[in-house]
Amino acid sequence: MKSYLDCIPCFVRQALEAARFVSDDVAIHEQVLRDVLAAAATMDLSQSPPMMGHRIQRLTRKLTGNQDPYREVKEHFNQYVLKMFPGLRESVEEADDSLNAAVRLAIAGNVIDFGPFAQVDEALLKRSIQEALGASIPEVVIEDLRGVIEQAESILYLADNAGEIVFDRLLIEQMPAQKITVAVKGEPVINDATMADAEAAGLTDLVPVIDNGSDAPGTILELCSEEFRQHFEAADLVISKGQGNYETLSDVEIEIFFLLKAKCPVIARDIGTDVGALVVQRGRAAAQAA
Amino acid sequence: MKSYLDCIPCFVRQALEAARFVSDDVAIHEQVLRDVLAAAATMDLSQSPPMMGHRIQRLTRKLTGNQDPYREVKEHFNQYVLKMFPGLRESVEEADDSLNAAVRLAIAGNVIDFGPFAQVDEALLKRSIQEALGASIPEVVIEDLRGVIEQAESILYLADNAGEIVFDRLLIEQMPAQKITVAVKGEPVINDATMADAEAAGLTDLVPVIDNGSDAPGTILELCSEEFRQHFEAADLVISKGQGNYETLSDVEIEIFFLLKAKCPVIARDIGTDVGALVVQRGRAAAQAA
Repeated sequence: MKSYLDCIPCFVRQALEAARFVSDDVAIHEQVLRDVLAAAATMDLSQSPPMMGHRIQRLTRKLTGNQDPYREVKEHFNQYVLKMFPGLRESVEEADDSLNAAVRLAIAGNVIDFGPFAQVDEALLKRSIQEALGASIPEVVIEDLRGVIEQAESILYLADNAGEIVFDRLLIEQMPAQKITVAVKGEPVINDATMADAEAAGLTDLVPVIDNGSDAPGTILELCSEEFRQHFEAADLVISKGQGNYETLSDVEIEIFFLLKAKCPVIARDIGTDVGALVVQRGRAAAQAA
Repeated sequence: MKSYLDCIPCFVRQALEAARFVSDDVAIHEQVLRDVLAAAATMDLSQSPPMMGHRIQRLTRKLTGNQDPYREVKEHFNQYVLKMFPGLRESVEEADDSLNAAVRLAIAGNVIDFGPFAQVDEALLKRSIQEALGASIPEVVIEDLRGVIEQAESILYLADNAGEIVFDRLLIEQMPAQKITVAVKGEPVINDATMADAEAAGLTDLVPVIDNGSDAPGTILELCSEEFRQHFEAADLVISKGQGNYETLSDVEIEIFFLLKAKCPVIARDIGTDVGALVVQRGRAAAQAA
């Protein structure tokens, strides 16, 4: 997905919010803001929005000297969701359609995203779970996903955020473990899940987990490691969580399903849905070929 | 008032909204946005926020070739408020304290502001009137204003927006006409009132009306005409309507009362009030000397 003009005011707002999240130093806030303004003034709008998020996050880490400023919120949400996990797993197992329930919950967890939002709290997460269980997802899309999972021999699951990755475990447990590889980010960026979060979620005991070698908030293939790209190209199916992965992979021609909560009007419009909607979307290339 | 870091994302959003308001041409939207980003990247934050609004509005007028893009909404709101005017005047005349009622209504009209908001509608204005009549304004501040009006021999009333200027007439009618001069903008900028709006409101038949010689959305004294500055310096009392005038005059040491509706969190914090509050604030210099 390209960047839209509407992304620009949002980049500027996010830059200020991110700088304030990681530092109390007003001089750092101003420096981050001015850098992003100058970059946005000449940016190539054909680039996907996470390119700018990548720049903002690298600069805030450099200026503060803090390589993982979201470590605390990542650990908090991992632990918080782990406490809910037995109950959530039971509800998945008892559901008429366990895959359908697990998809909904995996998407519900996608609200734990400190990119578009400056703050995420537990009340928001609880509302998201309730909404996800009641939301309408076309049955035909779930059936498509079920069929592709059954046919695929290798599935690459692109995790998005810490905390959310515990919800992902619910969905991963509904698929044959021997088919699956999970990918996390190579370095900390916002509250995106890294290997430490995959371990905290208990995923590393279930399936192979790799990192993508990158610190971009999404999957910018040219910034990923050669090892990750080989997995990506070899996979029969990619399951992609979250906005950042959608923004960076929506134009790639592979068999891919995007699972996310639409959190901004630009992405909602690009997908053709409403803000707040649960999205299960098959990649355009595969959908057209089917 | 200086510009705060929080003003910057707002400038960028306003630039895009203003460009879209005046043109359907995406190339113009992008050009305005990139210009404001580049300017904001190096801007002197000791300047007041209307300096950036001034730049945005000049550029949109230049790129579209439309010297008065808000003409239609200005006329619409003048006519709309004129229809309400007899009823509003009656309520002022019948009030226990007519000055107090007229102050409230003059501030209620300050929501007709296409600067911070991309759209203003009649429902918003009606709510603003209801809120203004019920809002709490400290009696002591109204008494201060009443006393200063009585003592002053010359009063300069700085109007803000079209439509709102009809509400201003309610307040101006509560003051001795021979003391008053009303000032409007020298050239169109956003929906700020110009001489045509003062005429539409019937003010030119009541009191002398001058223009300030400037197309800035506020009163940036160094951009105003020599004639206006003489009036400004000679006045015993300045009554200043709206956010733009507050932002550009809050540090000037004269006897001045600011009447406005706080429409953004930055101004609300600068004043020490809440967003949505009706503000009647005596200038700091005069308040300290008193």
